[in-house]
Amino acid sequence: MEKLGVAVLGATGAVGQRFIQLLENHPWFEVREVIGSSRSAGQVYGEAANWVLDGGPPAAVSGLEVKPLDADFESLLVFSALPKEAAETREMELAAAGHVVCTNASANRMVADVPLLLPEANADHVRLVDVQRRKRGWTTGALVANSNCTVMPVVMSLAPLRKFGVRKILMVSAQAISGAGYPGVASLDILDNIIPYVSGDENKMETESLRMLGTLAGEEIAWLDAVTSASCNRAPVVDGHLVNMSVDMEARPELDEIVAAWEAFRGPAPVNQLPSAPERPVQYLPQIDRPQIRRDRNAGNGMTTSVGRLRPCPLLGYKFAALAHNTIRGAAGSSILNAELLAVQGYLAGFHP
Amino acid sequence: MEKLGVAVLGATGAVGQRFIQLLENHPWFEVREVIGSSRSAGQVYGEAANWVLDGGPPAAVSGLEVKPLDADFESLLVFSALPKEAAETREMELAAAGHVVCTNASANRMVADVPLLLPEANADHVRLVDVQRRKRGWTTGALVANSNCTVMPVVMSLAPLRKFGVRKILMVSAQAISGAGYPGVASLDILDNIIPYVSGDENKMETESLRMLGTLAGEEIAWLDAVTSASCNRAPVVDGHLVNMSVDMEARPELDEIVAAWEAFRGPAPVNQLPSAPERPVQYLPQIDRPQIRRDRNAGNGMTTSVGRLRPCPLLGYKFAALAHNTIRGAAGSSILNAELLAVQGYLAGFHP
Amino acid sequence: MEKLGVAVLGATGAVGQRFIQLLENHPWFEVREVIGSSRSAGQVYGEAANWVLDGGPPAAVSGLEVKPLDADFESLLVFSALPKEAAETREMELAAAGHVVCTNASANRMVADVPLLLPEANADHVRLVDVQRRKRGWTTGALVANSNCTVMPVVMSLAPLRKFGVRKILMVSAQAISGAGYPGVASLDILDNIIPYVSGDENKMETESLRMLGTLAGEEIAWLDAVTSASCNRAPVVDGHLVNMSVDMEARPELDEIVAAWEAFRGPAPVNQLPSAPERPVQYLPQIDRPQIRRDRNAGNGMTTSVGRLRPCPLLGYKFAALAHNTIRGAAGSSILNAELLAVQGYLAGFHP
Amino acid sequence: MEKLGVAVLGATGAVGQRFIQLLENHPWFEVREVIGSSRSAGQVYGEAANWVLDGGPPAAVSGLEVKPLDADFESLLVFSALPKEAAETREMELAAAGHVVCTNASANRMVADVPLLLPEANADHVRLVDVQRRKRGWTTGALVANSNCTVMPVVMSLAPLRKFGVRKILMVSAQAISGAGYPGVASLDILDNIIPYVSGDENKMETESLRMLGTLAGEEIAWLDAVTSASCNRAPVVDGHLVNMSVDMEARPELDEIVAAWEAFRGPAPVNQLPSAPERPVQYLPQIDRPQIRRDRNAGNGMTTSVGRLRPCPLLGYKFAALAHNTIRGAAGSSILNAELLAVQGYLAGFHP
Repeated sequence: MEKLGVAVLGATGAVGQRFIQLLENHPWFEVREVIGSSRSAGQVYGEAANWVLDGGPPAAVSGLEVKPLDADFESLLVFSALPKEAAETREMELAAAGHVVCTNASANRMVADVPLLLPEANADHVRLVDVQRRKRGWTTGALVANSNCTVMPVVMSLAPLRKFGVRKILMVSAQAISGAGYPGVASLDILDNIIPYVSGDENKMETESLRMLGTLAGEEIAWLDAVTSASCNRAPVVDGHLVNMSVDMEARPELDEIVAAWEAFRGPAPVNQLPSAPERPVQYLPQIDRPQIRRDRNAGNGMTTSVGRLRPCPLLGYKFAALAHNTIRGAAGSSILNAELLAVQGYLAGFHP
Repeated sequence: MEKLGVAVLGATGAVGQRFIQLLENHPWFEVREVIGSSRSAGQVYGEAANWVLDGGPPAAVSGLEVKPLDADFESLLVFSALPKEAAETREMELAAAGHVVCTNASANRMVADVPLLLPEANADHVRLVDVQRRKRGWTTGALVANSNCTVMPVVMSLAPLRKFGVRKILMVSAQAISGAGYPGVASLDILDNIIPYVSGDENKMETESLRMLGTLAGEEIAWLDAVTSASCNRAPVVDGHLVNMSVDMEARPELDEIVAAWEAFRGPAPVNQLPSAPERPVQYLPQIDRPQIRRDRNAGNGMTTSVGRLRPCPLLGYKFAALAHNTIRGAAGSSILNAELLAVQGYLAGFHP
Repeated sequence: MEKLGVAVLGATGAVGQRFIQLLENHPWFEVREVIGSSRSAGQVYGEAANWVLDGGPPAAVSGLEVKPLDADFESLLVFSALPKEAAETREMELAAAGHVVCTNASANRMVADVPLLLPEANADHVRLVDVQRRKRGWTTGALVANSNCTVMPVVMSLAPLRKFGVRKILMVSAQAISGAGYPGVASLDILDNIIPYVSGDENKMETESLRMLGTLAGEEIAWLDAVTSASCNRAPVVDGHLVNMSVDMEARPELDEIVAAWEAFRGPAPVNQLPSAPERPVQYLPQIDRPQIRRDRNAGNGMTTSVGRLRPCPLLGYKFAALAHNTIRGAAGSSILNAELLAVQGYLAGFHP
Repeated sequence: MEKLGVAVLGATGAVGQRFIQLLENHPWFEVREVIGSSRSAGQVYGEAANWVLDGGPPAAVSGLEVKPLDADFESLLVFSALPKEAAETREMELAAAGHVVCTNASANRMVADVPLLLPEANADHVRLVDVQRRKRGWTTGALVANSNCTVMPVVMSLAPLRKFGVRKILMVSAQAISGAGYPGVASLDILDNIIPYVSGDENKMETESLRMLGTLAGEEIAWLDAVTSASCNRAPVVDGHLVNMSVDMEARPELDEIVAAWEAFRGPAPVNQLPSAPERPVQYLPQIDRPQIRRDRNAGNGMTTSVGRLRPCPLLGYKFAALAHNTIRGAAGSSILNAELLAVQGYLAGFHP
């Protein structure tokens, strides 16, 4: 099988770099085009990108010339790590021009016909692509989003519990610095410190989570009917977002029923067979002091959400901690998984993995 | 005025060191006796103590000989930084023998006639000393406790809000490593990490807070009638405990009424005149990203609790963040303030500052 | 005595903030004018400055209006925390206009008639002010610099050893993030990391140290005749620069002679009586694992240099570690001490403390 | 090929865990016996070990019963992560009893007939095994050591430069906390701190490096004839030791000759074909700010040493920075590579990979 060439928008930024790193040995996709800001355009990627991940950029990408955002490019499949403002109109233009855009940007996440996709949790939402194509007159194009990085461990840990009737969700996060991109958080702001504020994230946690846990009803998503409250904190850790959650569930399940639901949880076929899908989307850790950010963020190559410390909450019924790698499961990795689902569902015209 | 000589129990440990540091230039008290483990006993303090705070121990204390825990000693006033097990019986023995013991240990905090004192919040609880003296036949002796370090910012931030009818309290902490003493948390466990578990602290937060916010009713404390839920996390910061709180209040006050209550809050006379009392027990920080652990822990010489980020909570009505220095306001500093209150109330026989 | 009003240039930056913090309760000087970039000009300081130190700016300064860099201002004495480029010409202009400028900027440090002053080590260099006034036709104006922050512990630890004939100096630093200002080092670059490079600092260490340890010979400084080599590293600590040094000394002193030289070292009169002068400019710590950055950076209110680990170096004769607080002794604090020396030497026209 | 069962001594400690992690999918070796302290003996490994690395122990090892140190065990090949005292006699006993012991302990590193092996640098030293067998009357047994973790980047970076006549070596380290094992460094000692002391390491750096860079001369090692000086620092990083080095070389090579020597450096056959040998033992990083601990420690699966910042040293001729992963290349990984070399050289009786 010949690999499908893909383009990465916002390729020189922190999430763009993670896309390129994760795609290095991807069995289906191959980075052939990198798109950056006007400042980077024209340089080769290896020089334009201040590589902030470990080691350096893959040799095959280092030599690519960075194209400007308004360039025409060839790749059918486009991964977007654009900043919000740039994403807002450009992603729609690209989809209209026939590209399939899998975006990590927040700009279009709440647009009614844009699926906010997390394959293990809401693979059916992918059918919004049919809606957007019909309504907007797109043929090969599509726009599919993944959620905010802190929302991921929330949705992944609650997806298996929907059957118990989730009604209230209280979330308090501790978020890694990589969630703010590069240069992002100044070291003087975060060394030996916790900041009880992350711009914009509380609202995203309170809304994106409900849309993602909702169901496709006709041509739009019926949000989960639950009340949410989020408090976000920045912490001095490199990668990994931890969320302390208290949850009210109508069915009042026993604790071991909840654990069983997590352990039995698998993405539906064909999601569980996709190259980037972890063997277990959710793992329950029985130790009293897990999940821990540094020790559990890389579970399942960074694609597994770890939960632990399940116990009664005197106020809301249940509490536990959930953790996911914010730039893999919470950003680039999930976006790639979304693209894989699109591929096997036939949404990438002419490409049949 | 001649200073009152005091003894410090558990003087070589991390909290014992903080007692000695804070008492260095105290206007009323002077450390004259240091009591340590059998391992330290007989050495001079400067050699026995592995000083973990900044700089080194005060010269005046460095030369004192460390006495064993079972030694007789002279000081009427005793500060205890003993581990729980050692504290359990020894503190009672010392009070029975006529010493006034101000303890940071958890062992006797919930004993019915032991005040869990936080002068600005519950100065009236000090009258339990009369109860304990009468019931136990003590004359000059007394045992007074301060709370767990993470409970402090909770009680300090809620004390001004009791008038609004606090009914539900949800707390999620981020706690400094110094809360675990020395050697305490291994660096391999906490660098670039968050641990969603602190042994014993969730229970203390859920119970001590209610006892402290209660009122003296006859010979015992009527706890605040509220439901509590706590989740505790260890974070890679040196000092300072931050708590994200969601609170339900019957009176449904406006946000600015809450801010006004915090800003107007002062310890009652004579508490507000005590040497260790900060000018403001609680300060409200209006900036969107405060309080921050490193930048606000030393407010009021580590005795002021900082609150911020007050906003509606869709689930419980109100949410905010509260912060206090865990080894000053949360431990040694509060214990010294307790002793100062005892002094001005006449509970230190023969000492009239 | 009425205090002398002073101006702070670059007042909103990290070093500017430290000037303002250290001057808050200064017995002689009082901040009356704050000068910032065109972006800040016109706002009140409390709003213009993103305060990165603990707590917040002093109330008295918060309400001052920030003036633009090209404004006329009244203060005779000016502290400069300008970036290098802005400093280069503006500082000379101000001195020519009659202001006494004490600068932390590197721009003019190596100008032949600008003293690179460290009062305890080279108070005689202050007489270059006479040279600059005569040569440049200045009457009340002057320009006096302090060194790079990493050079400070080197010069302070070697000043007492000059009598032994220092001939070779090898320095390897570990430098705090605050040395890079704000926003300065991105947290993604330094958490769980060491960077073996600090732009520009190796050259400064190799040259400024020799000029500062030199002697005033006629109208210029005869540099210390020694060979220097520096390697600079950025480390994840908030404040404090540590330097591992190996030193060759002609006289081959015994180790205890070196310790004695450090312990006996005091600034010459009147330096040792200045308000910001620490009791001991250099302290020798006998413990095997000191000086440590966090525990010793605040010695002498951040103005004392700590040395330790003195032992033979098989290659250069002697090795030891030296540590100073980089934004106090290494920047604002030393600049203020320089101004105090100028004051008592009569260089501040009309001001006699 | 059937895998060779191996035993790990000190299996529950931090280095023991790294042995088990690295051996999880080893093509030749398989952990079949785990030996721990008397406290752990009798428990299954998964319960006895407080796993401090990421995730958890491999399932296949979790179920093994921990044997006491004095147990008889079957494995011909034994990896030792014992503490020094336990290692001193037990390793010799085991070798005498016919086991091939590859040890990370320091106890026997400087014994004349024990090779201090680093295959890419001194593969010929392996022939000391013949010497020890003949002298000590061992038949199948052997004892082979790897060096201190901080010595590794020194030896690896200098091995390619021996041809230039290395005569003086000055080393200043920044060492990760994992080098001290578990619990090791208390977090209160190292957060926001640098400690300029690591017990025992300076002497090891100054001696082990010379023995390793020496040549086999008859029945013993002729040490490299050079003068060494080391200063060791503990830094708040999880893994990875960085060394700032200044080096004097007789041949006065050009800088690009040095870079060429590093880039051309490969382990001799058959070392470069061993399963744990990295493609490049040494990589030169041309960026001005590399190698960095967090970004380069995992190069070559943690087995590649990264060097950078090569520039003239005014004192010793050359300076540069070298970095290696301290528990992989600096400990368990190198020990496994040593065992692989023993295997292909026929020193593991009956095992022919």
